[in-house]
Amino acid sequence: MKILLVYAHPEPKSLTSSLRDIAVAALEGEGHEVKVSDLYAAAWKSEVDRADFSNLAAKDRLQVADASCSAFAAGALTPDVEAEQDKLLWADALILQFPLWWYAMPAILKGWVDRVYANGFAYGVGEHSDRRWGERFGEGTMAGKRAMLILTAGGWESHYGPRGVNGPLDDLLFPIHHGVLFYPGYAVLPPFVAFRVDRLDASGFDRLAGRLRERMQSLFTDAPIPFRQQNGGDYLIPELTLCPEIGDADASGFALHIETSRTT
Amino acid sequence: MKILLVYAHPEPKSLTSSLRDIAVAALEGEGHEVKVSDLYAAAWKSEVDRADFSNLAAKDRLQVADASCSAFAAGALTPDVEAEQDKLLWADALILQFPLWWYAMPAILKGWVDRVYANGFAYGVGEHSDRRWGERFGEGTMAGKRAMLILTAGGWESHYGPRGVNGPLDDLLFPIHHGVLFYPGYAVLPPFVAFRVDRLDASGFDRLAGRLRERMQSLFTDAPIPFRQQNGGDYLIPELTLCPEIGDADASGFALHIETSRTT
Repeated sequence: MKILLVYAHPEPKSLTSSLRDIAVAALEGEGHEVKVSDLYAAAWKSEVDRADFSNLAAKDRLQVADASCSAFAAGALTPDVEAEQDKLLWADALILQFPLWWYAMPAILKGWVDRVYANGFAYGVGEHSDRRWGERFGEGTMAGKRAMLILTAGGWESHYGPRGVNGPLDDLLFPIHHGVLFYPGYAVLPPFVAFRVDRLDASGFDRLAGRLRERMQSLFTDAPIPFRQQNGGDYLIPELTLCPEIGDADASGFALHIETSRTT
Repeated sequence: MKILLVYAHPEPKSLTSSLRDIAVAALEGEGHEVKVSDLYAAAWKSEVDRADFSNLAAKDRLQVADASCSAFAAGALTPDVEAEQDKLLWADALILQFPLWWYAMPAILKGWVDRVYANGFAYGVGEHSDRRWGERFGEGTMAGKRAMLILTAGGWESHYGPRGVNGPLDDLLFPIHHGVLFYPGYAVLPPFVAFRVDRLDASGFDRLAGRLRERMQSLFTDAPIPFRQQNGGDYLIPELTLCPEIGDADASGFALHIETSRTT
């Protein structure tokens, strides 16, 4: 199988970098083919701006969704963005690897999402009708592919636990898991997370490396998080609210968007 | 009073830009002083890298938290970062204004957070003991100041509602509200949100502008979201998990970090 690993850390000698090398070696050891997009090494441009849309006339106002749609359709996106899109289409699985900074991606990786996820490619795909609201949240360009995160975090695991002060990690990652990965169709695997990385000793690193190798070996067999498909009957269209029979009438929160009848 | 508005949109003639002008005029109309950090206009650098830390020796490995701590203490951060820190210290209130892209900040604004929020300034502040885990989540450098978001979103309001397919907007924003604003001590106000901005007509814009003016007029009187203080007795230290008596024993989720006995 083919894997794209998008990697965002500024230090080539970091723990994150060591984990990347372990992940790549484990995947190649399984007979897979791996490409790495090292965003810092590539001096990736993080900001969406008019330079991204070569077919936008200088006199025209930049409306990002419209400009993205037009440039994608015309093949007028920039070569760096097109190269990443080609890699996404090539890969059977996508891994995003990054340190959690302020409970989210580093800017350079957010900029990869903002720029590579073009209108017509990652969103704005499929028909809108009274039965389907585009191909998204479980359908779309990436349907049939898998994705997962490899994270490093400075904090303690309990701080990110169900009742931890940071909020539960699963909820903190929902905007990425559901909003960035499930949105264009990926089946999303539970994340690999290394906590307290600034205090890791050699034996701790070995245990971590062992856990990561195992996860890479089961990349194509682990069960994904069973997010509900948008067009699968669980949501009213066009309101796109959960059908009344799902959960208690006044229940809300991210967990409702996971099918509890299926196990992860 | 003094307000810093940090603004992230690439198009000077955008709806977001019009809303910014309305917000600034409304604040100035109340007699306040306003500074705007227009990140695109300033060609803000989004990526944390070793160029941010002028006192880091070329032979040394970049460990971001350590390098940030050392550079902040030595006054060796870059002038663009120091200028933003000075504005944050100057302001009584911080407003972050941006279009919601992939359920999060545009990369350029995330890069403002990643770079301006230095170790010793926005985190790593205060003592760690068995009674206090640093000054954060309600304490810290920004204690006594207020903050809020002004957002534009392409989607429908129902899609971001309590049972909407995107997840509830309050939960999607928790990593920013709680993790970026409450963390260094800001009292966080409910956000101002404009939905379906691509389909707005003139009368819709007028209504939106009216709502925004009202929110700007009540910036210093609106009740903040009553997030729980980390060191106020609601969390065990050092686990930093909610005390057992808060919520049901198996309850989790972001809402537990808000004091339900207080009203917003």
